[in-house]
Formats: sequence, structure tokens, C-alpha cells
Amino acid sequence: MINYPIKKTTKKSISYKNRGMTLEEDINATNEYYLAHDVAIIHKKPIPIKVVNVNYPNRQSAVIDKAFYVVPSTTDYNGIYKGHHIDFEAKETSNKTSFPLQNIHVHQIKHLINIHEHGGIAFLLVRFTMYNELYLLEALKLKEFYERSFEGRKSIKYAEFKEFGHLIPLGYNPRVDYIKTVDALIKKTTL
Amino acid sequence: MINYPIKKTTKKSISYKNRGMTLEEDINATNEYYLAHDVAIIHKKPIPIKVVNVNYPNRQSAVIDKAFYVVPSTTDYNGIYKGHHIDFEAKETSNKTSFPLQNIHVHQIKHLINIHEHGGIAFLLVRFTMYNELYLLEALKLKEFYERSFEGRKSIKYAEFKEFGHLIPLGYNPRVDYIKTVDALIKKTTL
Repeated sequence: MINYPIKKTTKKSISYKNRGMTLEEDINATNEYYLAHDVAIIHKKPIPIKVVNVNYPNRQSAVIDKAFYVVPSTTDYNGIYKGHHIDFEAKETSNKTSFPLQNIHVHQIKHLINIHEHGGIAFLLVRFTMYNELYLLEALKLKEFYERSFEGRKSIKYAEFKEFGHLIPLGYNPRVDYIKTVDALIKKTTL
Repeated sequence: MINYPIKKTTKKSISYKNRGMTLEEDINATNEYYLAHDVAIIHKKPIPIKVVNVNYPNRQSAVIDKAFYVVPSTTDYNGIYKGHHIDFEAKETSNKTSFPLQNIHVHQIKHLINIHEHGGIAFLLVRFTMYNELYLLEALKLKEFYERSFEGRKSIKYAEFKEFGHLIPLGYNPRVDYIKTVDALIKKTTL
């Protein structure tokens, strides 16, 4: 029998902050996992860019040499899971006490509410980077906080995410297994 | 009573070719109509662009001065209708007798088949510009023609669109009312 060298390891809590993964990278890796394992088909939409000028140095290639970023008309992610339309926006905040609503475009909030009203599963994912915690907040709840913003508070408290949101457990692969929470939401609504 | 001048009109068939509307413009206008009338929420995805360099001439604006088009990983359009996930690709051809399969990326065909298998409504819209006719071809049918391409014919005949596709009637507003056909497909599958 071969004696394999045993690496001395101590069990440490995985710090995602130190690994320098952005929420977008984590979600993209998770969506790739879902796609590869035939769990769900969810893609990030390309960033909308208005192309002003394109150069053709040769027949094969086109180089865009003047373009601008434009405000996205919808959310960043959508797709399908078990026949359900999935739509969400993902945001990170380094704020310790709340998530400012100005971090998300008003038309994106309205889009999420609209998707919910058309029978889709719509939500907001917010990572509080100081706590390394990721919460899923359903569109209906987001709607309440959005409506409250007309009367006063323009943010959602961290404590409110704890109370009304759903904490997404962090893992190695998939990194942010949000579809389990989505699954629970579907079961809740179809009961 | 005021006598309004009466414009002499003769009923003419609307020629979309002469109005110079591309299929993309027609679909976008149709999707705007669906959104405004709360029928469906379907958007065109932005064209994927890889940004290489961004210039900041001042704090407010960012000018992209080097970027490239990249191959899209999915289809152009998706969204939700009556709780169903909708996903499609749209193509025009000036070919009179067939639609060459090389006009659509293989991974887009596979994506449509995958969406169908996950319970979504997936299809291909093809406009034969010479006839000014628009056909909807379901992903399952597309799959058959795609599989046939390994053995020989690398295109779908115009006659096959007539036989297996669904002709989308053209109108003024919405211009290409494809959701009616989608509705019929949903009713067919849920019977």
C-alpha cells in the first residue's frame, strides 16, 4: 500500500471576501453549474451598449471604436427552472445597516413586480459584503419597501433582510445555491 | 354640423417590404405593444460586446473606445407570457426556396431545444422577405431539421415552413402578433 502524503489541514471557515469573488462571478459560476447539471437555464444578459462607430481593419474583424453604456431596461438575470420563468437582479453593498434603494433602478424594481404579476418568480439578491451574507428578497416584499420609500425611508434595513428575506447558504460548488430557495418559494405558492 | 374633409382612400394591401421595416424592428414594436397592453413581457437581449478599453473624459461620462462583438451564448428574445417562459430567435432570409441552417448558431438551436425540455415555449421565427411571410417553427420541429442536417440537407425548405410552421398574420399594431400563435401552442400542449 502506498502511503500518500497527508496534507495537514485545519478546518477553516471559507472566506469569500478573501477569495476576491464578486457576487456576479459567484452567480455566473452557479448558473454554469446549473446548466451543466441540467438544473436550470439561467443566463446573465449582456451589458447594453450603444455602438456609435465600428471600424473594419479587415474583412474578418470589426473593432468598435466608439460606444457608450446605456441604462439597462430590465434586470441582469433571467431564465427557466422547472418550467417557471425566473428573473432577478443582484447587488452588493458594503453598507452594514441597510441596502439603499438608489442602488437599483426604479424601472428594474417595476420590472420585477411586473414579472411577478405575470406569474414568474422574481426577486432581488443582495449581498452584505461586511457580513458575507447573501439574501433573496421576493418581488412582492421589494414592492412594499419600494412603496414605503415614497413616504420616508429610502432603504431596506439589514434587519429587514434577516426578517423578510431568505439567507442563501454559501458553498463551494455551486457557490450561491439560490435555486433551492426558489424551489421552496415555488412549493409555497403552489400548495 | 361641421363637414370634415373626407380623404379619398382606396384599400391597399400593406407592403412591409416598402416600409423598410426589418424583422427586428417589427418584433421590438410588437413587444412594446405587448408590454404597454400588459399582454406579455418580452425583451430583446442586448448584443454581447467585449469591452477592451474605456476612456473617462470627465467624471460623468464613459466612452468605450475599444470593443469587439462576441458570439451570443443564447437567443435574442425571451420573457414571460401567462406564466410561461418564452424564448426565441428571429431570422430573415431573402432565399426563395429554403432557410439555410447556417444562419443560426448551433448553440442557439441547442439552447432552444433545452428551453423546450425545461418546460418553456421555444421557437424560431423566420421571415421569407421575398414573400413577406413570417413563420413560427417550434423548437421540437427545429430539432428534427437540425438532426436531419447531419445526414444531408443543411436547410429547411420553404415548403416545410408552410407545412410544419405557423404563419404569423401581419398587422398594423401589433405588427407581428406572434403571441396569438404562442397562445394556441400553449392550449394545444395543456389539453
